[in-house]
Amino acid sequence: MKSAFIFDLDGTLIDSVYQHVIAWSEALTSEGLSLPVSKIHRKIGMSGELFAKQLLREIGGDIDLERVKRVKKGQSEAFDRLNGQIQPLPGARALLLALTGAQIPWAIATSGSPEATSSSLEKLGLDSSQTMVLTGDDVEHGKPEPDLFLATAERLGVPIERVYIVGDSVWDLLGARRCHALGVGLRSGGVGDEELQRAGAIRVYEDPADLLDHLDELATHPK
Amino acid sequence: MKSAFIFDLDGTLIDSVYQHVIAWSEALTSEGLSLPVSKIHRKIGMSGELFAKQLLREIGGDIDLERVKRVKKGQSEAFDRLNGQIQPLPGARALLLALTGAQIPWAIATSGSPEATSSSLEKLGLDSSQTMVLTGDDVEHGKPEPDLFLATAERLGVPIERVYIVGDSVWDLLGARRCHALGVGLRSGGVGDEELQRAGAIRVYEDPADLLDHLDELATHPK
Repeated sequence: MKSAFIFDLDGTLIDSVYQHVIAWSEALTSEGLSLPVSKIHRKIGMSGELFAKQLLREIGGDIDLERVKRVKKGQSEAFDRLNGQIQPLPGARALLLALTGAQIPWAIATSGSPEATSSSLEKLGLDSSQTMVLTGDDVEHGKPEPDLFLATAERLGVPIERVYIVGDSVWDLLGARRCHALGVGLRSGGVGDEELQRAGAIRVYEDPADLLDHLDELATHPK
Repeated sequence: MKSAFIFDLDGTLIDSVYQHVIAWSEALTSEGLSLPVSKIHRKIGMSGELFAKQLLREIGGDIDLERVKRVKKGQSEAFDRLNGQIQPLPGARALLLALTGAQIPWAIATSGSPEATSSSLEKLGLDSSQTMVLTGDDVEHGKPEPDLFLATAERLGVPIERVYIVGDSVWDLLGARRCHALGVGLRSGGVGDEELQRAGAIRVYEDPADLLDHLDELATHPK
């Protein structure tokens, strides 16, 4: 049975979750809104628009579209200031190269903006013209709706039931469940094992390096 | 039976954990060292010196004292740039006032620097001359060594077995266990329930507001 892998990007291949969290916090504070930072952390990984709507709803603020746009823009600007420090997660590139070497199809499905995504691909040393990447812009509804995963699996030409969706947030795993894919959790986004397992992870690994070390648990490969 | 409360500060009363994490990450990167940010997060709450030593050991870097000092200084400078955004956690001030009103003794025991601590007290609207605060500088060994908790309990004049130690990190809870105090976890530092419970929390609450709402579970009080 041939499997395929769909990877989330932020917190899964690139070590950017905490910077995204701080940037959301800053953008909300600028709008006179505030939410404990740990609550923002647990919402990361949703589509940006759903995320902004949920946050504003939780805070009890008006959720008019203009305000959502302003918060999203503020987040993006704050994130740009922190982006310079961000590095790939251990083993990210090696894992992707190993999959390619084993002829196991893979792709990236991310809620991030096209700009942040292309910066991350560069940090990972991936040629964007050679890498299959879908972002929220490619579908109508972002994570945790499964649309993005379904569209990516279709592009890969692999039935969704044979696809591993690897992510660090509960939203990746919930999305995986909703479309009957197989969710795999990584701790590298700062969410603990139990939260990932409760959201449906069939396995939890430390980071891409740890997943690569245990790849036999998920897919037959030559090494 | 009269109880007392000892509170951690960062992540427990003040919403500063994520900024501390980013600042450590920045300081380590400046030294040419790198560690996934989620791993830094799980070490937050230890004494700064122990923290820097552990990080350098994990990374495999030299742990000479000069380097530890440079990393600590870099962290402190990076943190200062982010400090402006930081706010008290929901209910922090209300909880402390309620304890005072109920004549339940309380104090703060923190691994933070005296400068960061005094900035946090100001944000919480606490008069530093009226608030019992012990920092790592007051004892030889910081958290998770129980020295800081034992010294604080002695200052409060309450036997350690009757003291609740409220914290958001596993190091507060480990320290509590090591001196036979009662550990209470808060999720507001971004660590999940199971990690806090495994470290010995007898109860876990969302934030100070949630603890205040459930204060009857821990101590008799008039309201």
